[in-house]
Amino acid sequence: MKKKEYAVIGLGRFGGSICQELSKEGMQVLAIDMDPDRVDDFKDIASHAVIADTTDEKVLKELGIRNIDHVIVAIGDNIQSSILTTIILKELGIKKITVKAQNDYHEKVLIKIGADYVVHPERDMGKRIAHHIISSNVLDYLELSDEHSVVEVKAGVKMGGKTLIDLDIRARYGCNIVAIKRGREVIVSPMATEEIHHDDVLIVIGADKDISRFEKNLVVDDD
Amino acid sequence: MKKKEYAVIGLGRFGGSICQELSKEGMQVLAIDMDPDRVDDFKDIASHAVIADTTDEKVLKELGIRNIDHVIVAIGDNIQSSILTTIILKELGIKKITVKAQNDYHEKVLIKIGADYVVHPERDMGKRIAHHIISSNVLDYLELSDEHSVVEVKAGVKMGGKTLIDLDIRARYGCNIVAIKRGREVIVSPMATEEIHHDDVLIVIGADKDISRFEKNLVVDDD
Ligand SMILES: Nc1ncnc2c1ncn2[C@@H]1O[C@H](COP(=O)(O)OP(=O)(O)OP(=O)(O)O)[C@@H](O)[C@H]1O
Ligand SMILES: Nc1ncnc2c1ncn2[C@@H]1O[C@H](COP(=O)(O)OP(=O)(O)OP(=O)(O)O)[C@@H](O)[C@H]1O
Ligand SMILES: [Ca+2]
Ligand SMILES: [Ca+2]
Ligand SMILES: [Ca+2]
Ligand SMILES: [Ca+2]
Repeated sequence: MKKKEYAVIGLGRFGGSICQELSKEGMQVLAIDMDPDRVDDFKDIASHAVIADTTDEKVLKELGIRNIDHVIVAIGDNIQSSILTTIILKELGIKKITVKAQNDYHEKVLIKIGADYVVHPERDMGKRIAHHIISSNVLDYLELSDEHSVVEVKAGVKMGGKTLIDLDIRARYGCNIVAIKRGREVIVSPMATEEIHHDDVLIVIGADKDISRFEKNLVVDDD
Repeated sequence: MKKKEYAVIGLGRFGGSICQELSKEGMQVLAIDMDPDRVDDFKDIASHAVIADTTDEKVLKELGIRNIDHVIVAIGDNIQSSILTTIILKELGIKKITVKAQNDYHEKVLIKIGADYVVHPERDMGKRIAHHIISSNVLDYLELSDEHSVVEVKAGVKMGGKTLIDLDIRARYGCNIVAIKRGREVIVSPMATEEIHHDDVLIVIGADKDISRFEKNLVVDDD
């Protein structure tokens, strides 16, 4: 299987971060921006970094964009350029196109013209951070469904020194501790006899209502 | 315990999304922006929505900002306003201040002046989305440490119809299936006799290298 090739158009904070992360993971990435300074910042990060205005079909063809498997359009403020670029990529037959949207209207247009995946980075991150803010003991979380999550919570003094058997979380709260983070160590599927330290971080899975009951009863707010 | 009060300064996509999510979760939120149109959009969402330039200390005092427990500064492009607002909030004795940073330099200044939590929404979301892009079978993930994660992967045809015993993932790959998403249902801590459907989504926990070996061997790329 041929290794996948990616292109990132627009090297702002969002596109730049995608470009950096894909490159870090060893992927082939073509970095494109019409701003020479931004392109310059990526010439040692991406496989190739080129200055180009992607609303020009000829330019895109010459770049060999047709050989790219997945193009990420991370042009932000200029909605018109984002849309035009996406239309051209689609016409050139790119199989997978991910596009950053500025608002719902922009998203609707992008979907109509055939974008495969539309993202709202600022909005989605706002949502994540709101959850973090509401419960300062919840360090991070993964939403499994509307009603189920995996959350990272600080253990705190109330649980410190107790074993999982002592706490009997599954029976009392209906949720499960699937891992314990202790400093740089991660204990996956801890044994029932494992003793919790007050500065452990617990990875808990279950229904949101059960997790929240567990949190209210066993996790002490440290603010 | 008095219910916590929040204020969000800057109602762009990022601040607006935080304001919306906090309000949705039933929190008291004071929404502030100097743009009357943006404030208007939030008057039915937030508890209070006011037009104000937060670089003016007198204005902030008059708003009663000192009664707020946690202020989120989501001013973006105008770095100077973001910094000045943060300094004033700090001087007024706000206990918890979260600030959006535009770049590393901005972050350094914010930390020096006493911001409690600095966020880079575009950058962090770029990182998340890069991971999603690399493995289109990984739907979402939670990073537990540099080397451990919880990931959501599509099961696919290779695992369909097999039980967890058949697959023996723990012994063969060192990682664990902690939940199965099946349509709207989430099966937490599935039994060993549970049969996997090809369109299930599996929640897997473990070391990144083990998860990636599991993925390579059992998850078939559907692109
Ligand atoms: N037609 C185009 N062709 C190539 N690059 C473009 C085009 N239009 C805009 N860009 C580039 O897209 C990048 C992102 O644009 P945007 O306006 O969102 O900037 P930004 O706000 O700095 O990005 P971010 O929000 O990700 O930090 C910029 O570097 C810009 O030069
Ligand atoms: N001094 C200030 N006082 C109050 N509000 C301000 C101040 N300076 C900027 N804002 C508001 O902050 C909001 C966010 O500013 P920003 O420049 O990041 O806009 P944006 O790019 O639309 O935001 P986002 O990237 O979150 O979508 C704007 O609505 C702006 O009116
Ligand atoms: Ca932007
Ligand atoms: Ca939820
Ligand atoms: Ca912005
Ligand atoms: Ca990792």
